[in-house]
Amino acid sequence: MPQNIYDDNAFFKAYQQMPRSTHGLEGTPEWPNLRRMLGDMHDQSVLDLGCGYGWFCRWALAAGAKSVHGIDISEKMLQRAREYASSAEITYDCRDVESTRLPRDTYDIVYSSLTFHYLSDLRKIFSEISGSLRAGGRFVFSCEHPIRTAPSDPTWRVDTKGDPYWPLNDYIKEGVRVTKWLGSDNVQKYHHTIETYLSLLIENGFELTVFNEFWDGPQTNGPDAQNGGHRPFFLLVAAVKAR
Amino acid sequence: MPQNIYDDNAFFKAYQQMPRSTHGLEGTPEWPNLRRMLGDMHDQSVLDLGCGYGWFCRWALAAGAKSVHGIDISEKMLQRAREYASSAEITYDCRDVESTRLPRDTYDIVYSSLTFHYLSDLRKIFSEISGSLRAGGRFVFSCEHPIRTAPSDPTWRVDTKGDPYWPLNDYIKEGVRVTKWLGSDNVQKYHHTIETYLSLLIENGFELTVFNEFWDGPQTNGPDAQNGGHRPFFLLVAAVKAR
Repeated sequence: MPQNIYDDNAFFKAYQQMPRSTHGLEGTPEWPNLRRMLGDMHDQSVLDLGCGYGWFCRWALAAGAKSVHGIDISEKMLQRAREYASSAEITYDCRDVESTRLPRDTYDIVYSSLTFHYLSDLRKIFSEISGSLRAGGRFVFSCEHPIRTAPSDPTWRVDTKGDPYWPLNDYIKEGVRVTKWLGSDNVQKYHHTIETYLSLLIENGFELTVFNEFWDGPQTNGPDAQNGGHRPFFLLVAAVKAR
Repeated sequence: MPQNIYDDNAFFKAYQQMPRSTHGLEGTPEWPNLRRMLGDMHDQSVLDLGCGYGWFCRWALAAGAKSVHGIDISEKMLQRAREYASSAEITYDCRDVESTRLPRDTYDIVYSSLTFHYLSDLRKIFSEISGSLRAGGRFVFSCEHPIRTAPSDPTWRVDTKGDPYWPLNDYIKEGVRVTKWLGSDNVQKYHHTIETYLSLLIENGFELTVFNEFWDGPQTNGPDAQNGGHRPFFLLVAAVKAR
């Protein structure tokens, strides 16, 4: 069972101050790329895994989706979603994404933003996602880039000339990484290799259509804004379920 | 035009001492994985880009291939290939892989081992490979993993506790990297991101079937044997040309 740090009061308070919390999709630098990867939303049945505040659910409905279902482990996040992104066509469920079962042959689009790096094992959910999509359905997700989740001590270093570099180690060793973020010193994330993400797509009958190692320079928050181009920030992936 | 370091006398002499030179495919730790990715060789028309000594050409013929064509920029390597791996069904061509043109709709399998990281621009050759394969044909290649080719100073570091890490920088910045290897301090390799490799496959009508971030521990030569699991060594990729 993954950690549910978003229901921690102090962490949640800090998270609420982030641009992606206060400005929704407009405060999310990778959103324009994800938007392109999603394609036409008209009349689509949509599932959002790790829906958080429901920003995407609301956008999907406005973009023409027929119905949107959001799942999130955090009751605090879903309370906000029910306030801000409420509609007869949007339903929410408080459940752990890692272990959830999904209805078969139901969705045209499964979307998941920055959720998979909180899950210890992706095998079950990737199989559920495949089963829940109709033939030809789209799967679009983002996660922290594995280069970023790998290190045992993920903090920028500076060499003797003053140039920054990222101290990569433990890339092959998948599993939990305890990091500091938003005032907490016990945020549990899970490192999965790129091989794992892509192999699970292939094994579950997906065809890869977009693979984007996202880094957007100055718009990205934190030290990466200064350490431009040295390491990708997010991984953005789109795939289609084989017909 | 890429550098042709293999025709440099001192470099070539050192290269000849490596296990993969003296023991062929048996001295190549990633070979068992590539072998599985290749599948059935019987009656296949095969192209080997960067064929070097011709070890693979000889193996492919013994494994049942109908014909094998090897291309390499190094005349020294091809001289050896013509001695060691000679047959009426094997033909060799001394040409630059980056700029070569290939016949259309001709091959069942295109193979390339540790060659693409010597090429400055992969766009033309990936398009040529796609055009040269028959529908349903296989493309299997290996290259140095982009995590390995990225850094401006690709040498292992040690932290204050004595643990090794890889100083990653410049990942997003593709292009030439000048490194030291086998006694030369001017080996020119080219860093391409994983996004570039995979996007070129997708754009050229390939479906990804295997993505392997290879590291085999103690069998891998050099400092990686001690620095186990901290970073992938090679990228091994298989794809099928859409029918």
